Amino acid sequence: MESLYIIKIGGNIIDDENKLSSFLKQFAELFGSNSSHPLRGRAILVHGGGKVATKIGDKLGIKSKYIDGRRITDAETLKIVTMVYAGLINKNIVAQLQSFNCNATGISGADGNVIRAHKRISEIDYGFAGDIDAVNAGFLNSILLANDAIVVAPITHDGKGQLLNTNADTLAQELAKAMSSLYKAELIYSFEKAGVLLDAADDSTVISKINPQSYKQLKAGGKIFAGMIPKLDNAFAALNNGVKKVIIGKAEELGMLLEGTTGTTISNS
Amino acid sequence: MESLYIIKIGGNIIDDENKLSSFLKQFAELFGSNSSHPLRGRAILVHGGGKVATKIGDKLGIKSKYIDGRRITDAETLKIVTMVYAGLINKNIVAQLQSFNCNATGISGADGNVIRAHKRISEIDYGFAGDIDAVNAGFLNSILLANDAIVVAPITHDGKGQLLNTNADTLAQELAKAMSSLYKAELIYSFEKAGVLLDAADDSTVISKINPQSYKQLKAGGKIFAGMIPKLDNAFAALNNGVKKVIIGKAEELGMLLEGTTGTTISNS
Repeated sequence: MESLYIIKIGGNIIDDENKLSSFLKQFAELFGSNSSHPLRGRAILVHGGGKVATKIGDKLGIKSKYIDGRRITDAETLKIVTMVYAGLINKNIVAQLQSFNCNATGISGADGNVIRAHKRISEIDYGFAGDIDAVNAGFLNSILLANDAIVVAPITHDGKGQLLNTNADTLAQELAKAMSSLYKAELIYSFEKAGVLLDAADDSTVISKINPQSYKQLKAGGKIFAGMIPKLDNAFAALNNGVKKVIIGKAEELGMLLEGTTGTTISNS
Repeated sequence: MESLYIIKIGGNIIDDENKLSSFLKQFAELFGSNSSHPLRGRAILVHGGGKVATKIGDKLGIKSKYIDGRRITDAETLKIVTMVYAGLINKNIVAQLQSFNCNATGISGADGNVIRAHKRISEIDYGFAGDIDAVNAGFLNSILLANDAIVVAPITHDGKGQLLNTNADTLAQELAKAMSSLYKAELIYSFEKAGVLLDAADDSTVISKINPQSYKQLKAGGKIFAGMIPKLDNAFAALNNGVKKVIIGKAEELGMLLEGTTGTTISNS
């Protein structure tokens, strides 16, 4: 089986034009038409919107609403995230990748019926938030085979004409799970931190490898930062659904992350 | 050769939610997965942005600038049209088509390097306006083969990382020309008028067929409304570059337009 890398890029990289451009250059060197990198394979890049959506919403007089730290997607907010994620950010990433000789196609989950979701059912009304039901791996693969990469904006649809706003971390995980039937899928969360840290304030305390056994010990010893636990639980859930590895680390070090020489690698072995 | 319909939808249809929805339902009945229509074939839908982009620009305090009736695409306007055309409108059209059992994928010209353009060179500075250099018919076809339809937003790129705003009528024409190497391509301009009219105010005066000979006579007799002449010249240019037919007429009558029982059909014969 060929390798496929599903790479989620953190919001703070999206917010910084120089960081984004340098990340995309690295990405194109690894996966673009001119790549001769030994890890060259196929890639899906998943992005959110950083603070751009909030800024544009503010300018339009639409205030972001939050319940328990989670953004509520009302009808006006949905319009903004659709514009910003699937339009502005997605197309600018694609145009930059093209300039670095990486032929990418940008899509949302509505395109080709790639990601079908339903409006979240919950005691709290999250508005037009979408929880994923199904991923169309076959169509994703037909785009991959004709391109160097796919760029996915976290907008999904319900099959009844409604677009939905979906968490980009979860979306990346669902794509990795679905694509693992066709590829040796690796899921990479690239952001501003060096990986899973023993001390959240100190990048030198990165834990290089975590497996189910060491995870238990780390949790029992209270060594994992509470905020990290749901992310790691999700990572193990992905591993139990066909994903080969989950890697967490700095976006600036993408090549080394894929090689496993930096960041945190989570696997079942 | 199989038929391929490249259909440009007018801005006033985009602006009217009910008209748009009824148009998309018709479109899906013709080209969707459940279609049993004798004209069933493959389709590319090209849209602009109607007045939505202008309205959102106004709210953001960005005024549309025009020289000689043509919109100037400055950097801020480019951001808005990218958001509105490639994001909001494109994804809403796709989600609606999905709900009508038409599996569509929405793209801009940057995606898959589908439409490469250059910044317009002119005495007047039109800003980030793109004139088309090349269409990647092969990749468009690989998406078509995996879907019922493609929905194209009129945003192109220059291969150097710059997105560009391109006239949607011209874009539809260039797509039709490029796809005529693979398909029997027909180009349809669907809008609010019944076709090419002898009297611009009277829909009953539609000219049903125009060929090069009758066009000469109509022009010589001063019977063609001046604003229509560049459009018709473009139509004949398309016919001389492989396009089989150009049809102009009401969006509400899409099926009849394709059958040639309404609207104006322009052909070389």
